[in-house]
Amino acid sequence: RVLRIGLIPGDGIGREVIPAGRRLLEALPSSLGIKFEFTDLKAGFETFKETGVALPARTVDVLKNECDGALFGAVSSPTKAVDGYSSPIVALRKKLDLYANVRPVKSVASAARPIDLVIVRENTEDLYVKWEKTLDDPEIGVYAEAIKRISVRASMRIGEMAGIIAQRRQKLRESGVPSIHNSACVTVTHKSNVLSQTDGLFLESVRESLSRARYIHDKVALKDQIVDSMAYKLFREPEQYDVIVAPNLYGDILSDAAAALVGSLGLVPSANVGDQFTIGEPCHGSAPDIAGQGIANPIATLRSAALMLEFMNEGEAAAKIHAAVDANLVEAKLMTPDLGGQATTEEVLNDILKRL
Amino acid sequence: RVLRIGLIPGDGIGREVIPAGRRLLEALPSSLGIKFEFTDLKAGFETFKETGVALPARTVDVLKNECDGALFGAVSSPTKAVDGYSSPIVALRKKLDLYANVRPVKSVASAARPIDLVIVRENTEDLYVKWEKTLDDPEIGVYAEAIKRISVRASMRIGEMAGIIAQRRQKLRESGVPSIHNSACVTVTHKSNVLSQTDGLFLESVRESLSRARYIHDKVALKDQIVDSMAYKLFREPEQYDVIVAPNLYGDILSDAAAALVGSLGLVPSANVGDQFTIGEPCHGSAPDIAGQGIANPIATLRSAALMLEFMNEGEAAAKIHAAVDANLVEAKLMTPDLGGQATTEEVLNDILKRL
Ligand SMILES: CC(C)[C@H](C(=O)O)[C@@H](O)C(=O)O
Ligand SMILES: CC(C)[C@H](C(=O)O)[C@@H](O)C(=O)O
Repeated sequence: RVLRIGLIPGDGIGREVIPAGRRLLEALPSSLGIKFEFTDLKAGFETFKETGVALPARTVDVLKNECDGALFGAVSSPTKAVDGYSSPIVALRKKLDLYANVRPVKSVASAARPIDLVIVRENTEDLYVKWEKTLDDPEIGVYAEAIKRISVRASMRIGEMAGIIAQRRQKLRESGVPSIHNSACVTVTHKSNVLSQTDGLFLESVRESLSRARYIHDKVALKDQIVDSMAYKLFREPEQYDVIVAPNLYGDILSDAAAALVGSLGLVPSANVGDQFTIGEPCHGSAPDIAGQGIANPIATLRSAALMLEFMNEGEAAAKIHAAVDANLVEAKLMTPDLGGQATTEEVLNDILKRL
Repeated sequence: RVLRIGLIPGDGIGREVIPAGRRLLEALPSSLGIKFEFTDLKAGFETFKETGVALPARTVDVLKNECDGALFGAVSSPTKAVDGYSSPIVALRKKLDLYANVRPVKSVASAARPIDLVIVRENTEDLYVKWEKTLDDPEIGVYAEAIKRISVRASMRIGEMAGIIAQRRQKLRESGVPSIHNSACVTVTHKSNVLSQTDGLFLESVRESLSRARYIHDKVALKDQIVDSMAYKLFREPEQYDVIVAPNLYGDILSDAAAALVGSLGLVPSANVGDQFTIGEPCHGSAPDIAGQGIANPIATLRSAALMLEFMNEGEAAAKIHAAVDANLVEAKLMTPDLGGQATTEEVLNDILKRL
C-alpha cells in the first residue's frame, strides 16, 4: 500500500529532524509492503514572517485531503507577543480534531531507574481554547482573563483513549513482552480540590468513561492524583506510573517533567491522534541554541514516526523502528550531545537505519 | 517583646506538626528577647464536618485583630466535591491579602546535587479566583468553565517581592554566607506562547516591576522561561535557579516538583506573606496515610516558623532555627521515615530543640 505523509518541519531543529524522519520511513524494509510518499508543508514562525500566516490554509487542506499521516517538527515562539501570530501546532490539533496527545516516556532497558509510562494529554480544550481578553477597570487597573474549558465530551473521549492504550499495553505484557509493570493502571491528574467544577468534571468524566467501558477494561485499575502531588511523585517514584491521563495544560507540563527523567527531551516522541488522522511530533521545541549545527537528537522524531505508524495500524513497521532506536540507545556509542555524546544527527540516524 | 501566634493545625498530620512548631518557638533562647503567646484556631475538613464551615469567621477575626503571625498545618481535600466545602487556606490567603507564597527549596550542605532556590508564587489570583460555572448546551453537552485572572497590580507586587528576596539573598552572599550562586537571578515562569494576554501580562508586569526598581536591583539578572520547559530544566539543572517567580498554579506545581529534588516534601517550608501579616505553612499536605502515627517530619513546619519570623523582622531567631535544623540534617542520624530514617516526630523535634 501507498501512504502519503505530510512533512511540516517548522522552525529551528525541526528542519533537521523532520528530514531524518523522512529518511527513516524511506529506509523501512520493502518486505513490509508499504510505499511512502511525501508532501512538504509549511508552518511556523519563519512562515509567519515570510507570509503573515503561521499556519497556511494549504497546509491544513493538504493534510486533510491528501495525506494519511504527518510529521511535525517544532515551532519557535516569539519572546514577546506578536500581533497575529499564534502557535500553528495548537491550531492544527484543533482543526484536525486530534484530540489526544500521546506521549510515551520510557527508559532504556539498562537504566538504573526503569520508567515506562505514557502520558495521554487532552489536546483540544482547557486553557488552550485561548479565549482571552484584556480589560481596564478604573478601580483595579488592567487585568486579563482566560477561560479554562473542560467538557464532558472531550474528557470522556480522552478517558477512553487512555483506557484503550492501557489495555493495549496490558495485552503486550500478557503476550510476553517484558515490562516493569505487572498490571495496567490509569492515573487521572487534576486539581479538583481547587477547581471543583472544571477539574472535577474532568475527573468524573474520565472515571465514567472507564467504568462504562469496564467490559473491555476490567484489568485496568483507576487512580487519581492531584497535579502538584503528581509532579512530586513523578520525580520520586516514576516507576509507579503506567498510563497518566491529564487535561491539556497539566499534560504539557508533566510530559516535559517526565522527559527529564529519561535523560533528554530529545528522546521523547508524541502523537497527536484523532479518529481520522495522526501527526507525529517530537516533544522537544525548536531549540534555537543548537539549530543549524547538525547535532539535534533525531530519536524523538524517529520514535514519533513509529507512534504515528502505530495509530495508522502499521504496528509491524513501528516495532522495527522502536527496536532499531532501542538498540542504538542500549549500545550507547553513537549519541548526540544532549545525551553526553559527540555524534551528529546524521551519524545517529545512519546508525539507526543500519539496525532496521 | 510579646508576639502572639495563631495556630491552625487543620487536618491529618497538621495536628502533629503544628504542636511541634509551637514547642520550637517556646524553646527559643530568652536572650532573643521575644515572648511567644499562642491562640488555637480552627479550620479544615474536620472543622467543616463538625460545624458546616471550613474556615470559621472567628479564625479570620482573631488572626486579623489579635495575632502577629500564624502557623497553618494542612487540610484534607474530600475526594469528591462536597457542597459548600472549599479550601480554607486558599480563602485565608485572599482574606488576609497574603499575596506572596514564598517557598525556599535548599539541599543540605553535603548534598551531591546542591540546590538553593526560592519559588515566589503569586497567591491571590490565576485560576485560584475559583470563578467557575457549569453549563449544559443542547449541542455540545455539559461543560464547565473557570476563569484564570492575571492583573497588572498582583503581578507587579509579586515581581517586587521576588526582586526584594533576590536582593536579600545577594546581600547575604556578599556578607560572606556561602552560596552555590555567584549572582542573583530572577526567572519568570509563564506560558505566554499560548496565553499571550494573561501570562503575557504576568511576564511584562514582572519585568516592569523589576526594571522600575532597577536602582535597588541592579545586581539582579532577569530571565524568563516557559513553564513546561521550566519543569524539565528544574529536574535537569536545578542548581541554575536562584529565585523563580510564578503565577499561582504554576508555582503550586513547580514547588512540589522542586521539593522532590531535595528528598522530601517534609523538608520544604512556605510563608504566605502580605504587607501586614505572615502565615507559615509546611508545603506538604495532611498525609492521611501516616496521620496519627507520630512519624510526620516536623522540619517543614519548623522551617516555616523560621520563615514567618524572617518576615516579622526577627531574623536572628529565624537564623537560630535554620542552623539547628541544618545541623540535624547534616548529622543525618535522627530522621523520620520520609528521609529513610526511623525516628518519630518527637525524637526529631527534641534533637533540633537541643541544638538551638
Ligand atoms: C509549542 C507549544 C504551544 C506546545 C504546547 O504547549 O502544547 C508544546 O509545548 C508542546 O508540548 O507541544
Ligand atoms: C491544598 C491546596 C488548595 C494548596 C494549593 O493548591 O495552594 C496546596 O497544594 C498548597 O500548595 O498549599
